[in-house]
Amino acid sequence: MAIQRELPIPAVGDGSGLDGDAKLYPEELQLAFRNKAIPLEGLRYDVTPSGMHYTLVHYDVPHVELAAWRLHVGGRVRRPLVLGLDELQRRPTRTLRVTLECAGDGRALLHPRPISQPWLTGAVGTAEWTGTPLRSLLGEAGLDDGVVEILFTGLDRGVEGGVEQDYQRSLPLAVALDDDTLLAWAMNGAPLEPQHGYPLRLVVPGWYGMAHVKWLRAVEAIALPFGGYQQALAYRYSESREGPGEPVTLMRVRSLMIPPGIPDFLTRTRIVHCAPVDLRGRAWSGRARITRVEVSVDGGASWADAAVGEPPSPHAWQPWRHVWQATSPGWHDLLCRATDAAGDVQPAEQWWTARGMGNNAAHRVRVIVV
Amino acid sequence: MAIQRELPIPAVGDGSGLDGDAKLYPEELQLAFRNKAIPLEGLRYDVTPSGMHYTLVHYDVPHVELAAWRLHVGGRVRRPLVLGLDELQRRPTRTLRVTLECAGDGRALLHPRPISQPWLTGAVGTAEWTGTPLRSLLGEAGLDDGVVEILFTGLDRGVEGGVEQDYQRSLPLAVALDDDTLLAWAMNGAPLEPQHGYPLRLVVPGWYGMAHVKWLRAVEAIALPFGGYQQALAYRYSESREGPGEPVTLMRVRSLMIPPGIPDFLTRTRIVHCAPVDLRGRAWSGRARITRVEVSVDGGASWADAAVGEPPSPHAWQPWRHVWQATSPGWHDLLCRATDAAGDVQPAEQWWTARGMGNNAAHRVRVIVV
Repeated sequence: MAIQRELPIPAVGDGSGLDGDAKLYPEELQLAFRNKAIPLEGLRYDVTPSGMHYTLVHYDVPHVELAAWRLHVGGRVRRPLVLGLDELQRRPTRTLRVTLECAGDGRALLHPRPISQPWLTGAVGTAEWTGTPLRSLLGEAGLDDGVVEILFTGLDRGVEGGVEQDYQRSLPLAVALDDDTLLAWAMNGAPLEPQHGYPLRLVVPGWYGMAHVKWLRAVEAIALPFGGYQQALAYRYSESREGPGEPVTLMRVRSLMIPPGIPDFLTRTRIVHCAPVDLRGRAWSGRARITRVEVSVDGGASWADAAVGEPPSPHAWQPWRHVWQATSPGWHDLLCRATDAAGDVQPAEQWWTARGMGNNAAHRVRVIVV
Repeated sequence: MAIQRELPIPAVGDGSGLDGDAKLYPEELQLAFRNKAIPLEGLRYDVTPSGMHYTLVHYDVPHVELAAWRLHVGGRVRRPLVLGLDELQRRPTRTLRVTLECAGDGRALLHPRPISQPWLTGAVGTAEWTGTPLRSLLGEAGLDDGVVEILFTGLDRGVEGGVEQDYQRSLPLAVALDDDTLLAWAMNGAPLEPQHGYPLRLVVPGWYGMAHVKWLRAVEAIALPFGGYQQALAYRYSESREGPGEPVTLMRVRSLMIPPGIPDFLTRTRIVHCAPVDLRGRAWSGRARITRVEVSVDGGASWADAAVGEPPSPHAWQPWRHVWQATSPGWHDLLCRATDAAGDVQPAEQWWTARGMGNNAAHRVRVIVV
């Protein structure tokens, strides 16, 4: 039954680890409700349950009647194709376990906060995606000389930056031809749910989520780099909203921790009972495998190596764990940071960009030991 | 390809239909990310895809190892039971289509806004729940004379209102013995995902979501009304946080509209092209069937009857539709309101309670016709 305790739960506005004065616009709340993060305790699953996997939907989830749906493969190809899902499913099939993160994950932790989808942490998930390699389909269509990119168009349509548009992104030809770039129709062994791109989405292992175009309707070979909104403006590392900056591509090295203990409902303050605590989490990078995860239990003053598990797939996150002797009552700031084989390590503080992309600062979890 | 238009998209803070100065605390954002609403275009499905169904999780999603999990049926019974899931699944099985809404849905639309999970709209969903009637299990255990309520305890544990607690709620005996009150292990034909209560949850058709205890570990027959936090304090209609008020029980009559047109990404402003528009939505009540849905396209000055579909189940929402001749460019406020067979109708404005429960004000969607 209920146990009454004296707990120093901070008041709302004081204790979240965000600025108390960094209040949010109602429009940001609307976006937070549409776009779903994994609850961090969901990091305990090697494969994220489909309904827990993060989703970002720019416009509305489109409704697709499968009987009428076709994938059009065209542009600068010799043999344009128009294919139903059953025809795609008769082609070579692969299943890949892939970790997928939104490029804007952590945006609401930046100062000042770029106004857009206000991700805290957890715009990430790992799923088993089943589909056919794009490469073989492009081979069948026959690319013309001079093709430099493949352009992908979804059925989702809306307005962004004042421009009415279908969601569109391109990939460099070499990435589109990678054996692991898939046109996927199943997630964790079941047909895609509508919010994950039914009936067909692109999966580009290693890349941030914006590349994995959902509700695919067209694949086009193009001879000039695509200059549409999502490519040339939205997903850029830049100091201003108008600045071109560098394109967002592969996921940066990152780790997250399952918050230990139990939460206060309203403030999400974590209460940990005095005892050894098995800290666990996940680490990933779209650029190289994870070679090291470090944990700090003193706010970053000192770090210890966590045990890091083998990658279950070249494209999936790796588990880590570390036992913390939580024997000292009071507040503690726990952090984790990962290093990948390319030598990249998570920074203590994220460098700011106008659109809040690629945040991979060390993950900080504040707890009180009682 | 992209079409450039001149669109009067309002600036952030101006156009959401919420107060521009009603900025949100970071703690509310944290809750918004944990607790998931249906995107309103998801109302088009008779049965909500599982990953789109709303979820409210007070503490953390607990992890359950099925081999170790047992349901304990005890308290004032003659034959206490301890059952594994396989034993439950050998009992009589029913599947019911049930619409489930969070009692706090719409809380963030109130003025002043009660600080808690800041639901806008869409904390609702409809699923096919499969399980065994609680009634037969209670019959097997044999209730003592004098039992007045059945108490349900979940595996989710946290702090709320300063009290460390397992999530617990009770039902009046007559409700617990209703043929349609289920112990459910499947949702839409698949085992429950962790966030929906794996391996077993309570389903109480007609009641708001707080009654449908997830991650069940214990069912107890009790001889006095349960006075725990979630029963006596949290889910009450009251003018103050301390006031006892009336208990929250059955879902009030409500309807929602699929927002027509296409959205602006950031502000969710709806852009509708001049044409007849097929307005659609859902209506439900936990108290009686829906007898009428009305639509206003002029901000509530006048109302027209929508066509209302038959209920596919006594416990599921009903579809409605209405054609709007959207031929007049400019801003329009669309509303819908439902009436149930008990004669209850959605109010224009919600009466305020301290905890923001049972909001069923008419649903308002602002659009611009271009």
